[in-house]
Amino acid sequence: MKVLITGGAGFLGQRLARELLNRGQLKGPNGQPESISELVLLDVVAATGFEHEARVRVEVGDIAERATLERVIDTQTHTIFHLAAVVSGQAEADFELGMRINLDASRLLLETCRTLGHQPRVVFTSSVAVYGGTLPAVVQDDTALNPQSSYGMQKAVAELLLNDYARRGFVDGRVLRLPTISVRPGKPNAAASSFASGIIREPLNGVTAVCPVAGSTRLWLLSPRKAIACLIAGCEIDAAALGIQRVVNLPGLSVSVDEMIAALREVAGEAVAARIEWQADARVEKIVGSWPGQWDTSRAQQLGLVGDRSFAEVIRSYIEDERISVS
Amino acid sequence: MKVLITGGAGFLGQRLARELLNRGQLKGPNGQPESISELVLLDVVAATGFEHEARVRVEVGDIAERATLERVIDTQTHTIFHLAAVVSGQAEADFELGMRINLDASRLLLETCRTLGHQPRVVFTSSVAVYGGTLPAVVQDDTALNPQSSYGMQKAVAELLLNDYARRGFVDGRVLRLPTISVRPGKPNAAASSFASGIIREPLNGVTAVCPVAGSTRLWLLSPRKAIACLIAGCEIDAAALGIQRVVNLPGLSVSVDEMIAALREVAGEAVAARIEWQADARVEKIVGSWPGQWDTSRAQQLGLVGDRSFAEVIRSYIEDERISVS
Repeated sequence: MKVLITGGAGFLGQRLARELLNRGQLKGPNGQPESISELVLLDVVAATGFEHEARVRVEVGDIAERATLERVIDTQTHTIFHLAAVVSGQAEADFELGMRINLDASRLLLETCRTLGHQPRVVFTSSVAVYGGTLPAVVQDDTALNPQSSYGMQKAVAELLLNDYARRGFVDGRVLRLPTISVRPGKPNAAASSFASGIIREPLNGVTAVCPVAGSTRLWLLSPRKAIACLIAGCEIDAAALGIQRVVNLPGLSVSVDEMIAALREVAGEAVAARIEWQADARVEKIVGSWPGQWDTSRAQQLGLVGDRSFAEVIRSYIEDERISVS
Repeated sequence: MKVLITGGAGFLGQRLARELLNRGQLKGPNGQPESISELVLLDVVAATGFEHEARVRVEVGDIAERATLERVIDTQTHTIFHLAAVVSGQAEADFELGMRINLDASRLLLETCRTLGHQPRVVFTSSVAVYGGTLPAVVQDDTALNPQSSYGMQKAVAELLLNDYARRGFVDGRVLRLPTISVRPGKPNAAASSFASGIIREPLNGVTAVCPVAGSTRLWLLSPRKAIACLIAGCEIDAAALGIQRVVNLPGLSVSVDEMIAALREVAGEAVAARIEWQADARVEKIVGSWPGQWDTSRAQQLGLVGDRSFAEVIRSYIEDERISVS
């Protein structure tokens, strides 16, 4: 089968591509493994590091243009991971860009599939940001969406679209709501949640990190390793097991910022954990504070999706994956 | 102030226009009454019966075209009632048309307001069809949306868009979720709920009506009179009272089809109530069966929105409004 990853040059896209290439196959719609004949990585910049992979086709293009999607999706494209997105902080700062990439492009992708008529499997990623307002202590599968950011609204709209396209049989769709991914390697980005990686990554690199929210702020986190595992497992779930509700809350870890720092201290020592400065940022606090700190994961567990066991373990896997020497 | 009604030639649009002309004024954003200087009625066909009303401007156009909206909205347009829609049955039968009118046009209307920058008051109507799947006996304000029709999905998306445009201060938005309107005068339409008027209207006109759902099917109804009163009251609610949640479930009556027919018998006699044939229609049963039969109306009541007291009273007001002689 042909597989497409949008946002294929991004952090999760690259990791997912590597993992798919290692596996070499995905379960097909009939539940039998099928080998991946071609893996298309689409992004606004060229995905690098796949030059020697005969199965990989790197494509550069604007995902909000119909022509781009028609170039990367054909009737042989049986699985699509749609990861391309403008992050929360950027979607709040630039309303039009967020609408174009997070909403219009998602719809165009679904429309391209509908027009082709081959009912591909389409995996959308969504976010904690679809929730907001007064929330129960533990968010349930049937808790109402109430986004308090344009990013959250755009993700919620994409969820509704995918559910209806799936109901009508235009695609075999599934939406995986990702907890905040931590620890992300690399540089800070414009996501309001960027600090959730920064306060671990920077201190481990010997750099001081700024924490823009209170230590009591509760986050809902998933490591990159488990995120990739959940994306693949979520893609392979039998459509019948999902029924009419194509949205699944992925299993996260509920931790406060204070608990994250305690785990950093446990894994890397006091000197590392001391490299955090507190500097409240009302804009970030408002966005992050509207997200739920915990949700009910029984459906995810039933569907075989597995999260992290502890945040200390998350930090250790980050150190291992990124080959960081902790001194 | 200038007022725009989209769907202005439709049943609710015409009724709303008449009521606004009778009142002559609406509360402005500061809570003080302002007289209506111009009432624009936009629809795909010309609204008729307003030829002698100097304040009325009848406009014909495609609401999904930007130029149409730019023609009917300017910086003096302080209040917009957006009623134009493709009904549920039609949106299910013609996916593209439903997306164009129920989703794209609603967004274009919000975009036109954002571009003008004068933050008008915008009233969207939404529907029971945003709910579906396994529902609690009484739907609460925070019950998750789970539309099981494309119409419901499109309305849910429009709700999310309006909430975010309001949050960002692009419009002073409010969404009023309408129960099924009954009794509508005139002819059956392509709405899945068309029978909810037909089984009362046709027998009163001496014509046999076909009921496509079981007598035990529970509906959530609002009379045209109270719908118009709620639209105006909903428009006049102080923005601060709505807060971040701009969607309000209007107060309906929870009645079964059997109870509706019993009320018809009570008001118009056995001979009239006998003019109903039962002929199950799986397509209609599926759509209507996914809607909630009752929802919690405490917020609507708090906000001063009032529904009907009994279905017999609804039938009597229909007979009065439409000048029907019951023999």
